[in-house]
Amino acid sequence: MLFFDTVNSHQRSEALKAAIELNLFTAVASTDGTASGIAAECKAAERGVRILCDYLTMIGFLNKEGNRYSLTQDSAAFLDRRSPAYLGSVVDFLLSDYITSGFKSLTEAVRKGGTATSEEGSLEPEHPMWETFARAMAPLMYPVSQMIAQIVDPSADRPLKVLDIASSHGLFGLAFATRNTKAEIYAVDWANVLEVGKENAKKAGVGDRYHAIPGSAFDVDLGSGYDVALVTNFLHHFDQPTIESFMKKIHAALAEGGRAATLEFVPSEDRISPPGVAGFPLIMLAGTPSGDAYTFSEFDRMFKNAGFVKNEIHSLEPAIEQLIVSRK
Amino acid sequence: MLFFDTVNSHQRSEALKAAIELNLFTAVASTDGTASGIAAECKAAERGVRILCDYLTMIGFLNKEGNRYSLTQDSAAFLDRRSPAYLGSVVDFLLSDYITSGFKSLTEAVRKGGTATSEEGSLEPEHPMWETFARAMAPLMYPVSQMIAQIVDPSADRPLKVLDIASSHGLFGLAFATRNTKAEIYAVDWANVLEVGKENAKKAGVGDRYHAIPGSAFDVDLGSGYDVALVTNFLHHFDQPTIESFMKKIHAALAEGGRAATLEFVPSEDRISPPGVAGFPLIMLAGTPSGDAYTFSEFDRMFKNAGFVKNEIHSLEPAIEQLIVSRK
Repeated sequence: MLFFDTVNSHQRSEALKAAIELNLFTAVASTDGTASGIAAECKAAERGVRILCDYLTMIGFLNKEGNRYSLTQDSAAFLDRRSPAYLGSVVDFLLSDYITSGFKSLTEAVRKGGTATSEEGSLEPEHPMWETFARAMAPLMYPVSQMIAQIVDPSADRPLKVLDIASSHGLFGLAFATRNTKAEIYAVDWANVLEVGKENAKKAGVGDRYHAIPGSAFDVDLGSGYDVALVTNFLHHFDQPTIESFMKKIHAALAEGGRAATLEFVPSEDRISPPGVAGFPLIMLAGTPSGDAYTFSEFDRMFKNAGFVKNEIHSLEPAIEQLIVSRK
Repeated sequence: MLFFDTVNSHQRSEALKAAIELNLFTAVASTDGTASGIAAECKAAERGVRILCDYLTMIGFLNKEGNRYSLTQDSAAFLDRRSPAYLGSVVDFLLSDYITSGFKSLTEAVRKGGTATSEEGSLEPEHPMWETFARAMAPLMYPVSQMIAQIVDPSADRPLKVLDIASSHGLFGLAFATRNTKAEIYAVDWANVLEVGKENAKKAGVGDRYHAIPGSAFDVDLGSGYDVALVTNFLHHFDQPTIESFMKKIHAALAEGGRAATLEFVPSEDRISPPGVAGFPLIMLAGTPSGDAYTFSEFDRMFKNAGFVKNEIHSLEPAIEQLIVSRK
């Protein structure tokens, strides 16, 4: 019955988190797959491992044959720590206290119409949550960042001045810098978060073309003459008037003919599909004063009011977010 | 993708809990179904209500047509507070801190092989959790209690001495007392919990045939000569040796030809189905030192070791628990 399944569904999150924290998926693949073998590898109790593995089998993350567990194809690709596509680190952010504390006070957030955790929630200056985000979410964002650079700068052979708003791990800007040796990246984020982006820029060998602009994107001098402004996973934290006025600032920072590239969760006009996307506003309600997800027609209107002449939406499948390219 | 759906599935529990706490389902049915109408009724912000209602629509608890929400058939039956089948109160237990705190330390519980909340978890004497359970879970247990009385005492016309172990809300014993005017109920539970059962016995008009035995079922004198011993939602808190020795005590308390009626989550022999039942051991791992769910072959062996000669299992559909009737 949907009701009980839903009431108990927090257990699924906790079970998956425990398995990732214990490195259980890696242990399933690297041992004989019995509860005792896995338990020895994870330094956990056999009884605990047996119960957790049965649960993970039930919810689709493991197979069970007799008393041996094995990884499903997806678990092998994304949850075995030895896989290059390992995504387990995202629970460090998505199931961090930063996120779950907002949901603990969700009833109050509905009453209030915004986060009940504090006045500004996750939007407080230099909130440590964004350092966690930058480290945990990078693996998930890598393929998306490559797709965006390919769409926005397909030839990758001309000088390109790129503004990267809320640059976080830096991957969105770095995707341009690594493909195009003439691209210069100007990354805006809190000072503590920029350190993560700088590390990644150095690792990618483009540290000399990576320039940090520390501070609030609303308050700092962004500079001017940009060919591209990346506005990724940022606008959903704000209400429509704030977005409109912020996009005017972006518009002013762009060169003539420059483009803004906005990465967002864009629900269909009915706001109840597709599933992952339509669920996103609840995260904003729980954690921010007035964040939301906006439909394409809402973005189109806000961006036009900010001065952009044309907005085009691009699918980034298999990712559920979409890219809006807006021309000055 | 299953991974992200699972990571985020805690949000489903929290959204449903918030809706129940706000009486939102009742408000959807009793207003014009717009976010503003519902918000006024729930004394909540329209923005909060709109985001929550979209989420609940996405996960199947509401319908949406234009800007109006309405209840699904199941939500109307089980989540509108005016419905006689209202089940919303179960979140007071199933999503109480008692339960969720165990899941917060699930990784440690897997390492340890038992609850990491405290030495005894929910098995501490007079744990307040069981008062909450008694009040919150009664509506869910009412239909099950009626089915059990019908199976065990179909004629309901002969004197019947009934022992009700871990009587909680009292409904299991009371189902016998209200059907059979010659039934006398002896209810065992913590003193604080027995108060709830006594209240319900009075309400049912059978207070004079309802006798309280306060204390631990393991330690108190249970009395003797019982025709029926109800052992409902109790054995899963313990390991197999403890169950076997407890059932010897039950065996001794029964009259010749007496029967034990055990209500339990009984997974199939592979332990990974059916879904709701196979998920139960994780709750025991999170909250108890050594609780679990046992297959019928395990119960059959334990009960035979305790002296019972024959064990029969009965479906209680649509409930997911099953009844094992054991003859002395």
